Amino acid sequence: MRIAQIAPLFESCPPRSYGGTERVVSYLTEELVRLGHRVTLFASGDSRTAAVLEPCHTTALRLDNRCRDPLTHHMIMLHRVRQRAAEFDILHFHTDYLHFALFAELWDKTITTLHGRLDLPDLPAVMSEFAMLPLASISNSQRQPMMWANWYATVHHGLPAALYRTGRGNGGYLAFIGRLSPEKRPDLAIAIARRAGLPLRIAAKIDAVDRDYFESEIEPLLKGPLVEYIGEIGDAEKAEFLGNALALLFPIDWPEPFGLVLIEAMANGTPVIAFNRASVPEIIDHGLTGFIVNDVEAAAAAVPQAARLDRQAIRRRFEERFTVERMAKDYLTLYEAVLSERPRAARAHAEIDLRMDAAD
Amino acid sequence: MRIAQIAPLFESCPPRSYGGTERVVSYLTEELVRLGHRVTLFASGDSRTAAVLEPCHTTALRLDNRCRDPLTHHMIMLHRVRQRAAEFDILHFHTDYLHFALFAELWDKTITTLHGRLDLPDLPAVMSEFAMLPLASISNSQRQPMMWANWYATVHHGLPAALYRTGRGNGGYLAFIGRLSPEKRPDLAIAIARRAGLPLRIAAKIDAVDRDYFESEIEPLLKGPLVEYIGEIGDAEKAEFLGNALALLFPIDWPEPFGLVLIEAMANGTPVIAFNRASVPEIIDHGLTGFIVNDVEAAAAAVPQAARLDRQAIRRRFEERFTVERMAKDYLTLYEAVLSERPRAARAHAEIDLRMDAAD
Repeated sequence: MRIAQIAPLFESCPPRSYGGTERVVSYLTEELVRLGHRVTLFASGDSRTAAVLEPCHTTALRLDNRCRDPLTHHMIMLHRVRQRAAEFDILHFHTDYLHFALFAELWDKTITTLHGRLDLPDLPAVMSEFAMLPLASISNSQRQPMMWANWYATVHHGLPAALYRTGRGNGGYLAFIGRLSPEKRPDLAIAIARRAGLPLRIAAKIDAVDRDYFESEIEPLLKGPLVEYIGEIGDAEKAEFLGNALALLFPIDWPEPFGLVLIEAMANGTPVIAFNRASVPEIIDHGLTGFIVNDVEAAAAAVPQAARLDRQAIRRRFEERFTVERMAKDYLTLYEAVLSERPRAARAHAEIDLRMDAAD
Repeated sequence: MRIAQIAPLFESCPPRSYGGTERVVSYLTEELVRLGHRVTLFASGDSRTAAVLEPCHTTALRLDNRCRDPLTHHMIMLHRVRQRAAEFDILHFHTDYLHFALFAELWDKTITTLHGRLDLPDLPAVMSEFAMLPLASISNSQRQPMMWANWYATVHHGLPAALYRTGRGNGGYLAFIGRLSPEKRPDLAIAIARRAGLPLRIAAKIDAVDRDYFESEIEPLLKGPLVEYIGEIGDAEKAEFLGNALALLFPIDWPEPFGLVLIEAMANGTPVIAFNRASVPEIIDHGLTGFIVNDVEAAAAAVPQAARLDRQAIRRRFEERFTVERMAKDYLTLYEAVLSERPRAARAHAEIDLRMDAAD
């Protein structure tokens, strides 16, 4: 197939460090190339890929100090995709709703993966207006605020199997990884570790917007015993950080559509102790790859149990459910579904037209 | 002509109080209707117009507390314009660059008035990518950062002549009107009034983003003698506020593309004392409608001179240069120019295509 992957421009593909969406787009793109598809990747110019790179802006926007308005560069990219649309069998967008208006007429050769949370007050209007565009969710839980949208499939994220291997988990510490923001609840991770009487290592970036939160809420907690903040880490360090951890703590307080770090932990054979929120139950097999709990006390109580889980079995479950091979296969099936269901889609489109006429 | 006017959705057309762009779109729309054109206004649903209103979102977004992401609603509006594009001879956009990608192919039936400042680092890339779209500036000064863009005309703003009449200017005070933000320099207006020994009345809104600035820099100054803050005022109060003022102070510190309040003062026969920045020299006739100065001292010295200017002459100059009749005539000429220059534009477009091919 001739496939266009259209990534956000905030990070390169793959990102230098943090950046979930661009990371997943990168994994998917490389796997599709490996499978023999002709893939063009629309992404920032500092991306690295075996696909044909269509560079949009020279560097990832997060690293460009001169960038004030990221939307301009996304508009330029989408214009270039639109001009070249005829060259592709399928256009796979990862750019939220930014491309909807521009590709409304070409909806039957597009698929849009929504990577963000959907419980935002302005989204129903835009999803309803552009109801013709086929959507993919990254978890079933993500759909919750808009079950009625034009969902074609849920495709869970996947990682290259070779990226990590089963770690030994003998570092004697618990791990926390992610942004240091209120909804990730690093404070609860610290509380869990304290209650379990084990060291906690925190690998995380601090966004400008979270600086106040970090300084007022988290930094004072770092002064206590057992807690160590090691900063933002890259892929190379992540294997060691996760592989040596006794367990990963994931006490989230927001509807995270898919916690990529959950399957990164699994790929390292590391169990996860996670709060029972959002997509967590879709990803963690309770009692096999980790424990799903409801509060700090239960999380701390789960630590000794997690330490006894079979790390090889965790890795095997990762290989069964969360490799990039599985993700790419799912998306290829989805591309075929979009392309083969044009008659069905055309009918739905006609109904939408009728509905809009009726609303006039 | 069948004309579509496409307004931003932040304020209604016209706005309840503050809001330059939507105000100008409203004046232009009503005048085009009066001239017998078939006008459709794409604007927020609480707009009031003699044109056909295509309501996009129920209320102005600034008044909608639930709105987090104004872009969604603009995308919906632009999609609706695109679907109905064939119904119009000309599409007149006031939506920055948001519509560029969606209307790139229809560029030869569009005109875009850029209402904002253009010295922003991300704009050259977007103006260059969409170089086919005809642009109008609201002052020549506005073009300065991008003289090379696809400018077709400068059209200065205009007001309905009947909106104001020559005031008596006998209130014994100087006036300041606008947002209380650092670049509007209300602090300098206060300094000028103090030095001139005259009361200053400040009619202004305080945006959330300017709250800190107001409390730390301006509020303490209000406690002194001679300075009175009267809050945000509507059209009805503006006539009295401006008409009774001895002069309007306009000591701006930013490249304001067009100060609408300058011509509002002129329409009331009120002289303006303005700093020599940006579009000010295009709007003020030095010695006739006001004085253009370089600092606080010169501004204060100009106050007695301004008080001696002929208010009827100021009003006449307004009628010659800044009525909505003149603005609408200018835009109609521009619409004709865009439509009649399709062959020229087509050549330019071909050159752009060649340039893009060469860059591949």
